[in-house]
This record gives sequence, C-alpha cells and structure tokens, in this order.
Amino acid sequence: MSYFKNIPSRVRFSIEKMQKVNLFETRNFFCDIYCLEPGQIQKAHTHNGADKIYFVLEGQGTIQIGNEEKIVKKNEICLAKSGLVHGVKNSSDERLTLLVFMAPNPNI
Amino acid sequence: MSYFKNIPSRVRFSIEKMQKVNLFETRNFFCDIYCLEPGQIQKAHTHNGADKIYFVLEGQGTIQIGNEEKIVKKNEICLAKSGLVHGVKNSSDERLTLLVFMAPNPNI
Repeated sequence: MSYFKNIPSRVRFSIEKMQKVNLFETRNFFCDIYCLEPGQIQKAHTHNGADKIYFVLEGQGTIQIGNEEKIVKKNEICLAKSGLVHGVKNSSDERLTLLVFMAPNPNI
Repeated sequence: MSYFKNIPSRVRFSIEKMQKVNLFETRNFFCDIYCLEPGQIQKAHTHNGADKIYFVLEGQGTIQIGNEEKIVKKNEICLAKSGLVHGVKNSSDERLTLLVFMAPNPNI
C-alpha cells in the first residue's frame, strides 16, 4: 500500500447515517474521515484508555466534550481525552467532514 | 484548559528553522503543527515503536517515507510507520503548514 493518500477523493456521504472512512490503521492508532450530512450525529459516548482528536476539514458542526459543547468550524481542532464523554452533530445545513485520530487503537 | 483550539491563530514561522507548535499532548499521543518557510526541512529520521501522520494544512512540500518521496499538497495525508525513515522539505516557494500526529507519545 502507499503511505500517501488524498482526502477529498475518499470522502463519502450517505443519507442513512454518518460515514466513517478509514485512512490509516496501525497497532498504535487509527485515522479516519467522518462524513456527516446535515442533521447526522455521532452519539455521545466514552472510551476508557484512548484519546481522540477531531479536526474540521469542511463545514461546521457541534461537538460535545465533557460538559463543554461548541460550534466548531473549518480549521478548528479538539481533544476528547480518555474517559470524557464526547459526540458530534452536524447542526448546520452544509456537509461536515472531520479528520479523526484515536490512540491507542481500540480495534486491536 | 479548553479542549477546543483554532489552528490558524497558532501557526508561527521563523526564518531560523521549522517551528513545531504543540496543540495537544496526552499519555497516548502528541498533535503538533509544523510550520516551514520555503527551503526549511525536518531531516529524515526514524522512530522505533511510534507511528506518525502528516496532513498538509496549507502549501505544498516534499515528504519522504521509506524509499518513497512525493510532493504533497493541501488535503493530502501520509503515514510514517514505526521504523520507516521519514522527513519533510518545503520544496515550494510558499509557506508549508502540516498537522502532525504521533502515537505513542515519545516524550513520555
């Protein structure tokens, strides 16, 4: 496999639900694109032992981390540390695309 | 501290050398911005046990991973797995800004 990828060519939306597109996965982390149509959500949830970052590639949405909830826009980034409840909603009327990193990799 | 940050407000360049601006650091990873003036480099190097991702926020440059070397542009992303030599050069005449993610955190 190549170690180089172009993100816009991999973005994929569905009216059914938020799409997760994996870019890279190693023993140490995963890196995904999350693609949310207006109104779609990733329900608030918690991971124990793993930290997650959300970076806004396109659009804007509402991210909850612990007891903070903020509207985030392109070029904003946030950290959900292990144990803190977090979730995303595309509260706008445009598509929302996020770059997501999580370590360690909970799938391994 | 807030879990939410705006990247453009934190970008910082120096004619002396590439600037690394830390955004987040946990036991599991660090997330930095690397800011390279034209001609600046991060010399090729290797980490054992940690994987790194580079994502191009602005500009373009040349990234080496193992025996691959490619020109990367805005919205392209690449993975340097543990043990693979990797480095960056701003081979363009515009500023280059990268989002960098590394896990596990080699500083801890």
